[in-house]
Amino acid sequence: MSAEHDQIRAVAWTGAGVRLLDQRRLPQEEIYWTIACVSDVAQAITKMVVRGAPAIGIAAAYGVVLAARARFSEAGSGWKQLLEADLCDLEAARPTAINLAWALARMQAIIQGLPDHRDPESALLVEARCIHEEDIAANRRMGELGTTLIEGSVGVLTHCNTGSLATGGFGTALGVIRHAYGKGRIEKVFADETRPWLQGARLTTWELLRDGIPVVLIADSVAPYLLGQGEVQWVIVGADRIAANGDTANKIGSYGLAVAARYHNVRFMVVAPTSTIDWNLSDGTRIPIEQRPPEEVLTLGGKAIATVGAEAYNPAFDVIPAHLIDAIVTERGVVRQPTHERMKALFG
Amino acid sequence: MSAEHDQIRAVAWTGAGVRLLDQRRLPQEEIYWTIACVSDVAQAITKMVVRGAPAIGIAAAYGVVLAARARFSEAGSGWKQLLEADLCDLEAARPTAINLAWALARMQAIIQGLPDHRDPESALLVEARCIHEEDIAANRRMGELGTTLIEGSVGVLTHCNTGSLATGGFGTALGVIRHAYGKGRIEKVFADETRPWLQGARLTTWELLRDGIPVVLIADSVAPYLLGQGEVQWVIVGADRIAANGDTANKIGSYGLAVAARYHNVRFMVVAPTSTIDWNLSDGTRIPIEQRPPEEVLTLGGKAIATVGAEAYNPAFDVIPAHLIDAIVTERGVVRQPTHERMKALFG
Repeated sequence: MSAEHDQIRAVAWTGAGVRLLDQRRLPQEEIYWTIACVSDVAQAITKMVVRGAPAIGIAAAYGVVLAARARFSEAGSGWKQLLEADLCDLEAARPTAINLAWALARMQAIIQGLPDHRDPESALLVEARCIHEEDIAANRRMGELGTTLIEGSVGVLTHCNTGSLATGGFGTALGVIRHAYGKGRIEKVFADETRPWLQGARLTTWELLRDGIPVVLIADSVAPYLLGQGEVQWVIVGADRIAANGDTANKIGSYGLAVAARYHNVRFMVVAPTSTIDWNLSDGTRIPIEQRPPEEVLTLGGKAIATVGAEAYNPAFDVIPAHLIDAIVTERGVVRQPTHERMKALFG
Repeated sequence: MSAEHDQIRAVAWTGAGVRLLDQRRLPQEEIYWTIACVSDVAQAITKMVVRGAPAIGIAAAYGVVLAARARFSEAGSGWKQLLEADLCDLEAARPTAINLAWALARMQAIIQGLPDHRDPESALLVEARCIHEEDIAANRRMGELGTTLIEGSVGVLTHCNTGSLATGGFGTALGVIRHAYGKGRIEKVFADETRPWLQGARLTTWELLRDGIPVVLIADSVAPYLLGQGEVQWVIVGADRIAANGDTANKIGSYGLAVAARYHNVRFMVVAPTSTIDWNLSDGTRIPIEQRPPEEVLTLGGKAIATVGAEAYNPAFDVIPAHLIDAIVTERGVVRQPTHERMKALFG
């Protein structure tokens, strides 16, 4: 794995605050914001300045550091009580990705163990940094594990953006693609443009080209045709939440890809850290699906593309049933043909 | 069928030339061009000022009238020989839709029967008008026939634009939707936005709202999820070319819709006049698939959406195998579960 294929960090702690690469503006503009206030972190998550399930969790963890700093400065030993509202705001920022709640739960566990009278910032920063660094390490490990599943030198198709921009760094599905490309296991990378937000067109092409990996962009509806042409051996995607039986919520369009992949006997890989697994949900039917504003479909770059008066339906995620998934790759191992039993056997 | 649901004509003969509603500019601008020169008609087809398989055929037929007018004026009794180059230009304007070649063949049959020394315009105009009027009549008939397949009051999903904008008037798939909506058989119309050219977002929403039919727009990748939710009972699409066995080339994305529809036991209807059938092709594997410029995917409205340096793959059509089609509706009847034998039995 050459370092040249891993140059990007979208979330960073600067001391003054959390620095975010604004993903609404890429690829035209590379703008970094340093956010020093927790409510702005929550807003940045809702408005998708930062997006991608693991990156959201990391940004929220740093948001807790900022909140604790402000609340301790404001209320001294009363900081814990005031902090609760901040944690609620962060958790409500987006509903589908479980990594957000998972990161906040880790931060809360630290908070509970801290004394009321001492400045909590440094202890919380240690935990937030730890969440961030563990995420990068998990991604590198998943890159290795996912690559072992790929035989020969293949064509792959990915959806949305699951790379350094969506995580602490390196990426989940795109981490596997990075690693496998470096190992010569990937001949060609196809990326779905991923309407309506165009994460594929805007972010995945930017990230892969920045890191020296050629990419061919397609409109989302081309994917089944492409699979039928035999150009793709693996579809590789990330996850926003995985139920206990392996059902996987991911960016809208993932479900259709899985249906088309199975129809063509193309293999389907989900790559996500174990923080994405929600053991409280027995299956995917109960994963909350975020509905985003119709304007994301009706307009593009602020300009109307559809007719005034048209309605739009804009679910941000769908759920891939476990039986359409060939492998779930986590940092703790690979679950092939996932079922509740196989998930438990690896992680239980 | 109320007349209020059928107000639009995208192709018309004015005497001075063929009047086209510029489909690149809708829905923001409603611009009509009157084209008096055959090479401009060919350009208008290539650049998609006019698009939709039947509309292309009709525009080309009027283009032949313009060409004959110019060639007779230029060369008198030598007009037929000069006209051959014009016919070649028209036929080469777009490769996939067979209606173009079909309309030109009808015009050529008239040309062959005409004397060299007499002005051919009026005889050719009669044939072009006939092609146009027959298309509208065929669409109305298909609207009735397709509606008989719909039981109860259902949700439908359509792809691309197959309406008055894509035909002589009324539409193929959208003609069935128009008619069935007027008869109270349709509860809800969903339209795929149809990247990259956004025929659904730009044209289908414009046409349906103009004619008083509410429509809900979705990103293309939402369709399989929507089918899984049970909101749609019929997927209804048009066709650019149908092989002798029922395999159907249509706008890119149609194939994936058919795969997803079958997976969910949702029924799939193709609506196209018999002029769309290419009896010379035994199956769909030999239908030429037009590759459109990568810029259609990499940019939107002239503005780059993807990263500079990214490649794009942009096939304009795909092929739905006959076994995924529940019914092909033509003006001469309906072929259910199409096979070569059933196609021949109805039309042979």
